[in-house]
Amino acid sequence: MNVLLASTSTLFGGKYLEYIKKEIQELFSGIDEIIFVPFARPGGISHDDYTEIARNFFAEINIKVKGLHEFEDKISAINSAKGYFTGGGNTFLLVKTLHEENLMNVLAENVKSGKPYLGSSAGSNIGGINMKTTNDMPIVYPPNFDCMGLVPFNINPHYLDPNPQIKHNGETRETRIREFLTQNNIKVVGLREGSWIRRIGDKITTEGTELTRIFEKGKEPYELESGSEL
Amino acid sequence: MNVLLASTSTLFGGKYLEYIKKEIQELFSGIDEIIFVPFARPGGISHDDYTEIARNFFAEINIKVKGLHEFEDKISAINSAKGYFTGGGNTFLLVKTLHEENLMNVLAENVKSGKPYLGSSAGSNIGGINMKTTNDMPIVYPPNFDCMGLVPFNINPHYLDPNPQIKHNGETRETRIREFLTQNNIKVVGLREGSWIRRIGDKITTEGTELTRIFEKGKEPYELESGSEL
Repeated sequence: MNVLLASTSTLFGGKYLEYIKKEIQELFSGIDEIIFVPFARPGGISHDDYTEIARNFFAEINIKVKGLHEFEDKISAINSAKGYFTGGGNTFLLVKTLHEENLMNVLAENVKSGKPYLGSSAGSNIGGINMKTTNDMPIVYPPNFDCMGLVPFNINPHYLDPNPQIKHNGETRETRIREFLTQNNIKVVGLREGSWIRRIGDKITTEGTELTRIFEKGKEPYELESGSEL
Repeated sequence: MNVLLASTSTLFGGKYLEYIKKEIQELFSGIDEIIFVPFARPGGISHDDYTEIARNFFAEINIKVKGLHEFEDKISAINSAKGYFTGGGNTFLLVKTLHEENLMNVLAENVKSGKPYLGSSAGSNIGGINMKTTNDMPIVYPPNFDCMGLVPFNINPHYLDPNPQIKHNGETRETRIREFLTQNNIKVVGLREGSWIRRIGDKITTEGTELTRIFEKGKEPYELESGSEL
């Protein structure tokens, strides 16, 4: 497999996908066109407008972008594509759409056969085993929470450390993930902004500028340095 | 109806339910025993331990507490009870359990017939129309997202204002609720900690020390002062 799952599309103060531009070029090396999956579309913009944002970035590295929503026959579009990018937004909306249109498994099969896949945020969540560690609000009801399983764990993008200065009794991210582990025996990779997961063949590593926090049932959470194998 | 839906059980630096003790006494006035619904149990503690926390508070105001999990026949326990308190934790876990044991509608019918109901956090979420505006992590998959509809809107407990100082690109609470409104036409009441909703008969008011932020499809969000009718 050839997969890059990023915590976020945009670092604070940065431009869209700028901080992983070199890695994206490597991921899609030799490929001149990819499909963009816009179904998590954030903030109520249209699929067209969201695809345009991705298209503008990829134009800089000479890769054409087609929006998956543009195709009448989406299954055949996925099967014919050379590579994929799924953008962020709301994971519930993304997973609902992919399952209702029977696209989740088709996309997974193509990526498992070796075609490169880039995800950011919600697009990284669906690279995990299931979406039960998303941070998103359940604004729609998906037919199930299963995802592609491109990696043998779940991802928590935008992982945030507890802030002792906040006078607020909502659960911290760490508490939420520990609650997940009371109900599920699946490793969770907390990806801080600026970090990503890279899978090349069978080798899966943590990458980026930040440590990566790992949660496993029955263990204290621990940190992995950039470049560690997962 | 006689309902109190609180944003949180515990204010920063305060004790469990202390800030609404007087209101809870009024809500359950004339009642010497209630049922506690512990199914959202937070942080992996047992139903017994969670019920004990509620029991200790209610002992101070001379109300006995039985945990719903203690009953073999939970439907009949709910039908025989004089009042109810559902505590916080994970809303997905709470809603899944209530639906799987066919308790959501039974509880709703009893509260709609006039028995007093107290909710905090996840226990307030289930007082709304559905749980699509919870902040919680989807650690389990409920058979559906429908809730009791004790009020004709949805609740977002622990409502947090955007913090411009946080260098983080996860969605703000306001962004998430605006995304909900792109997919649903249901009013959302953002309850800051220290605020609650009170329903007496047909009159529904916002209460507490904070302003309450209201979100409606096609409108800019707006604030209501304590005591405003909803």
